Amino acid sequence: MNQEVVNSPRSRSDRYEKGEALLNRIHGAHTGEAIVSALGDVCPDLASMTIEWGFGEIVSRAGIDLKTRQLVTIASCVTLGHAQPQLRAHIEGALNVGASKEEIVEVILQVALYAGFAAATNAMLLAKEVFASNSIH
Amino acid sequence: MNQEVVNSPRSRSDRYEKGEALLNRIHGAHTGEAIVSALGDVCPDLASMTIEWGFGEIVSRAGIDLKTRQLVTIASCVTLGHAQPQLRAHIEGALNVGASKEEIVEVILQVALYAGFAAATNAMLLAKEVFASNSIH
Amino acid sequence: MNQEVVNSPRSRSDRYEKGEALLNRIHGAHTGEAIVSALGDVCPDLASMTIEWGFGEIVSRAGIDLKTRQLVTIASCVTLGHAQPQLRAHIEGALNVGASKEEIVEVILQVALYAGFAAATNAMLLAKEVFASNSIH
Amino acid sequence: MNQEVVNSPRSRSDRYEKGEALLNRIHGAHTGEAIVSALGDVCPDLASMTIEWGFGEIVSRAGIDLKTRQLVTIASCVTLGHAQPQLRAHIEGALNVGASKEEIVEVILQVALYAGFAAATNAMLLAKEVFASNSIH
Amino acid sequence: MNQEVVNSPRSRSDRYEKGEALLNRIHGAHTGEAIVSALGDVCPDLASMTIEWGFGEIVSRAGIDLKTRQLVTIASCVTLGHAQPQLRAHIEGALNVGASKEEIVEVILQVALYAGFAAATNAMLLAKEVFASNSIH
Amino acid sequence: MNQEVVNSPRSRSDRYEKGEALLNRIHGAHTGEAIVSALGDVCPDLASMTIEWGFGEIVSRAGIDLKTRQLVTIASCVTLGHAQPQLRAHIEGALNVGASKEEIVEVILQVALYAGFAAATNAMLLAKEVFASNSIH
Repeated sequence: MNQEVVNSPRSRSDRYEKGEALLNRIHGAHTGEAIVSALGDVCPDLASMTIEWGFGEIVSRAGIDLKTRQLVTIASCVTLGHAQPQLRAHIEGALNVGASKEEIVEVILQVALYAGFAAATNAMLLAKEVFASNSIH
Repeated sequence: MNQEVVNSPRSRSDRYEKGEALLNRIHGAHTGEAIVSALGDVCPDLASMTIEWGFGEIVSRAGIDLKTRQLVTIASCVTLGHAQPQLRAHIEGALNVGASKEEIVEVILQVALYAGFAAATNAMLLAKEVFASNSIH
Repeated sequence: MNQEVVNSPRSRSDRYEKGEALLNRIHGAHTGEAIVSALGDVCPDLASMTIEWGFGEIVSRAGIDLKTRQLVTIASCVTLGHAQPQLRAHIEGALNVGASKEEIVEVILQVALYAGFAAATNAMLLAKEVFASNSIH
Repeated sequence: MNQEVVNSPRSRSDRYEKGEALLNRIHGAHTGEAIVSALGDVCPDLASMTIEWGFGEIVSRAGIDLKTRQLVTIASCVTLGHAQPQLRAHIEGALNVGASKEEIVEVILQVALYAGFAAATNAMLLAKEVFASNSIH
Repeated sequence: MNQEVVNSPRSRSDRYEKGEALLNRIHGAHTGEAIVSALGDVCPDLASMTIEWGFGEIVSRAGIDLKTRQLVTIASCVTLGHAQPQLRAHIEGALNVGASKEEIVEVILQVALYAGFAAATNAMLLAKEVFASNSIH
Repeated sequence: MNQEVVNSPRSRSDRYEKGEALLNRIHGAHTGEAIVSALGDVCPDLASMTIEWGFGEIVSRAGIDLKTRQLVTIASCVTLGHAQPQLRAHIEGALNVGASKEEIVEVILQVALYAGFAAATNAMLLAKEVFASNSIH
C-alpha cells in the first residue's frame, strides 16, 4: 500500500459556497466552520464533501422544501438508532427552518411503528432536551 | 409455560373502523381486508393492532398531513433496508395521498446521506418499479 | 401543514390500568408514573401508548410467560445494539419476574451468534452493572 | 498479502460431534451434513465453526432450555430483519424442540415493539409459511 | 410544496469521466452506462453522484489500494445484511482488481465476529455463487 | 428451566494461548487479562471464546494479513454504528499492526458510501481522538 501518498485537499467546486450558506442557514451561523474545524486535522475532505455534496448538491435541491427535508432526515436518524449527534442537529435544524415542535414529535411517533418504540422513545427524550434549550421556538 | 392458553381475539375499539377507512384510503380499497386475511390464521391480533393502532391512532393524528407521514415513513423504510414490502406499500401510499414522483425521489436521495447509497439505490429501483405500475400518477 | 392543530390527549381505554399495573410489577413501583412524567411535556401519548399497548395489550398476553417475554425482549435489545436504556430496563425487569442472572447471561451469549460479539460484549458488561446494583437477586 | 497461503482445514475438537448431534436434533437429521455440503467448497471452516462453536459450545450449554434458546434466537433474527433464512430455520427448530406455534407467534408480537411492525409483520408471514409446511406440529 | 419544480440534471464535473473509467475497470466494461440506464428515468442524478462522487472522488483516492477498498466495502455490505446486490457487485469487483477468493472468504469470516454468523453465512453463500460464475479467477 | 445448573467453565484448547498472544500483540500487553477480568464475574466463557475463537482461530488465520483484518473490522464496526468501544479498540489495533492514520481515515471514508455519512462522521471523530492519544504513530 502506498502509505506515503497523501491525498491533497479536494479542490472545491462552486457548490461549496452554496452548501455552506445553506448549512449555516439550517444549523446556525458558523456551523460550516465548526465542521471544517472538527474534521480539519483528521479528514478535511469529509468536511468539504459534507458541505459541498450534502448541502450544496442534495439539501439544496428542489422537489421538497427544507422543512420536509429536515423531517425525513429526522425519520432516518431515529431509525438508525445510533446517530444521536445527527438527530440532535437535525431536530435543531428542523426548528430553524420552520418546523413546529409538534411536527417533529409527530414524525418521531410515526416512525415508532417502523423503527420500534425503543428508538422512538430515545429520540423523543432527545427532542425534549433540544426543545428545552431552544425555548424561543 | 401455558401452551394451552390461547389468546382470545382482541376486542376492537371504535378506532378500528377509523383506522380501516384511513388504511383503505391510503393504500387502496380492501387493503384492510387483505391484511386481516393475510395474518388471519397466524396472528389476527397483529392485523387488528396494525389497523387500530397504526392507522386508527397514529396515522390519523393531526400535526403533520398524510403526505408528510408517507414521506417520513418512506425515509424510515429506506433506512431499515430490509423492509422492502413496506417500502413498496408506502411509495404507493404516498402517490395515493398526493405526493408526486419527484417528491418521493427527493426523499430517497436525501436519505442516502444517512442510510448509505446502497440502501438508497435499492429503494430508488423499487420506486421505479412502483412508478411504472402506477402510470396514472 | 396544519401546525395549529394540536392532538388532544388520547382517551385511555381500560387496558391502561392493566398495563400500568403490569409495568409497575415488572419494572418496579411508580415506573408507569416515571414514564408519564418523562414524556409528559413532549409527547404524553407516547407514554400512554407504551403503557396501554405495550403492557396492557402485548406484554399481558397469554402464550408465553413473563420471564420468557423479558428474555426475548433482551434478545431484541441486544440485537438492536443502540437500545441501551431499554436493555438495562429489561435486564432489571427479567430479574424482577424471576429470571436468574445465569438465564440472562445465557440469552446474551446465545444472541452473540446472530448479533455479533461486539453487541454481545457490550450487553454483557451492561448486565454486569445491573447485577451489581441488584445484589438482592 | 500472502495469497498463496491456504488455511488448512481446522482440526475439529470433540465438541464437533456433540454439536452436530444437537444441530440434527433441533433442525432435522442430516442438517449438519447439509451445512458442511453447502459451505464445503467456499469455506468449510465456517461450517465446522457453526457446528462446533454454535451448537457444540453455545446451544448445548445449560442455563436455559432448548426451547427458550430457539425463542430468543427467533427474537434476534426478527430484529435483524435481513436474516430470513435463519429465521425460517429457527422457527422450524423451535417447533422441533417443543415450542408451540402460539409461543412463536407471541415472541414475534413481543419483538414488534422493539424491532418495529414492518420486521414483525414480515416475520409473522414467514412463520405462517413454516407452520403451513409443518402441519404435524 | 413546489411539485412543479423539477431539478435540472446535475452538471458533471471532470471527475465524472475519471469515476466512470474507474467504475468500469472495477466492475466491468459498460457498468457506468448500466447504472445510468437503470436509474435514468427515475433519478439520473443518483447515477451521476454514484459515478462522480463514489468513484471519481472516493474510490479513486490514494491511501489504500483498490483491492483493500473492495475488501472493506465487502465488510460493510456484509454488516448491513440487506445490501445483497451491492455485496455481489463488490465481490466481483474485488476479484477484478486482484483479490483472491481466499482473501474474500477471509474478510467475510473476520466480519462474522461483528456482524454475526447469520449475515456471514448468507454472504459466504453469495460469494460461492459469484465464484462459480467467475471461474476464470 | 434448570436454573440450578451452572455451566462449568469451558476447558480451553491450545488455541487459547495462541489467541491471547495475538490479542496482546494487536491490542497491547495484558489486553487478554483485561478482557478476562472485565467479563470474569459475569460470563468468563465469553472472555475465553473471544480469545480462543476470535483471536486463536479467526484473527490468526492466513489469507489476509493482520493490517487488512483490522481495516475490515473497522469497516464492520463503522457500519454497525453502535459498536463504539470496539471501533476504538480496532483503530488502536490497526495502528499497532502497522496501519497508518491515513489508511484508517480512507477506510472510514470509503465506508461512508455504504453506512452513511452520519456513521462515518462519528467514526472519524472517534479516530481523531484515538490518533491524538497515540501520538507516537
